[in-house]
Amino acid sequence: MKRGGSEEAKRRAGERAAAAVEDGMVVGLGTGSTAAHAVRALGREVDAGLDIEGIPTSFQSRELAREEGIPLTTLDEATPDLAIDGADQVAGGDLIKGGGAAHTREKIVDSAADRLLVVADPTKEAEVLDAPVPLEVVPDARQTVSGAVREHGGEATLRAAECKDGPVVTDNGNLVLDCEFGTIDSPDERAATLSAIPGVVEHGLFVGIADEIYVGTDEGVRVREL
Amino acid sequence: MKRGGSEEAKRRAGERAAAAVEDGMVVGLGTGSTAAHAVRALGREVDAGLDIEGIPTSFQSRELAREEGIPLTTLDEATPDLAIDGADQVAGGDLIKGGGAAHTREKIVDSAADRLLVVADPTKEAEVLDAPVPLEVVPDARQTVSGAVREHGGEATLRAAECKDGPVVTDNGNLVLDCEFGTIDSPDERAATLSAIPGVVEHGLFVGIADEIYVGTDEGVRVREL
Repeated sequence: MKRGGSEEAKRRAGERAAAAVEDGMVVGLGTGSTAAHAVRALGREVDAGLDIEGIPTSFQSRELAREEGIPLTTLDEATPDLAIDGADQVAGGDLIKGGGAAHTREKIVDSAADRLLVVADPTKEAEVLDAPVPLEVVPDARQTVSGAVREHGGEATLRAAECKDGPVVTDNGNLVLDCEFGTIDSPDERAATLSAIPGVVEHGLFVGIADEIYVGTDEGVRVREL
Repeated sequence: MKRGGSEEAKRRAGERAAAAVEDGMVVGLGTGSTAAHAVRALGREVDAGLDIEGIPTSFQSRELAREEGIPLTTLDEATPDLAIDGADQVAGGDLIKGGGAAHTREKIVDSAADRLLVVADPTKEAEVLDAPVPLEVVPDARQTVSGAVREHGGEATLRAAECKDGPVVTDNGNLVLDCEFGTIDSPDERAATLSAIPGVVEHGLFVGIADEIYVGTDEGVRVREL
């Protein structure tokens, strides 16, 4: 998905994060427009001789990595030394992801990595997380999960597709509920509550996973270590 | 799956639980050999005029309910008043399920029900849960989840299929890891830990969901309300 800040700011963040990748590394390749800049930058480095293997976080990032000529491997064979991924909202070190409906595999890869570098632009930054939290849910559980979200003070909306009739279907064959909770004061508690709802495959709260945040601006890149 | 106690004990438990179903109810229909006795008993009652609708917890229970002539509905249209389901192990009011790899949908339906009646035989009873906990996992996350289970003191084994090469694939297209933790002293904490592992769709611990336990014996049925 493409949203938010300027392409130039996103490019700066992505390229700076890509510069952290060293020869011999296995790299988790994030999804979305900002992470795509990092993947493209890595592609150029690979052309210039950098020896890495990538583990894509989605169908989209796999396709881009193939186009860019980045050799690929899988979580069955390797553990990422580092992952570079975008976010829909960043507050402190916590993220909301899932605007691209890829957050389940993103979380699997990003959590497996020794270090997660988050790339963003200033429009993604917030004092406190308050964006809707995407939930990937087993199709049969759409109504029961919506009910459970309501009991927890949220409002769930089934994400509709734009280029097909009906709902968005994830790369894993599931549905997405975008859940509005207002301000999320305790992301760790909210995350635990959402994880426990039967039928929730994965929620879009990434709590305590990120190690560094790269925010591209029109002037440069702010790097924050956590 | 068919395991454990005598068919007669299972039949007693299933039939007694089925007797709790009243006219007009929506009933969650469990999976497994003991729950099947309840479904068959309900089928006979429907033949005799009982007006209910069933919500199956699996492909298997849907097929059985159709054979038995039980009208079916879905969680999109109705909420179960009551569910009847089996268990692989019962201790106190907590369960381990997933021997039949149906625990994700079982948990969705069983949790949605106002009351869950668990049907079992004495071979399923334990003082403390200590059976392996089945995890349904996104295929890509097999190795990372196994690693996370190891970090939490467990040992994960990919469940192999018997009538196909390779692993068991669930009705949702995922894999099953059977995770040996030894004695599970705090099922609620273990459940929260497992729910939080990225790539775990659902674990087989059912904590605080059951309302009544029906244990069939060769002499009768012990009923325990929780």
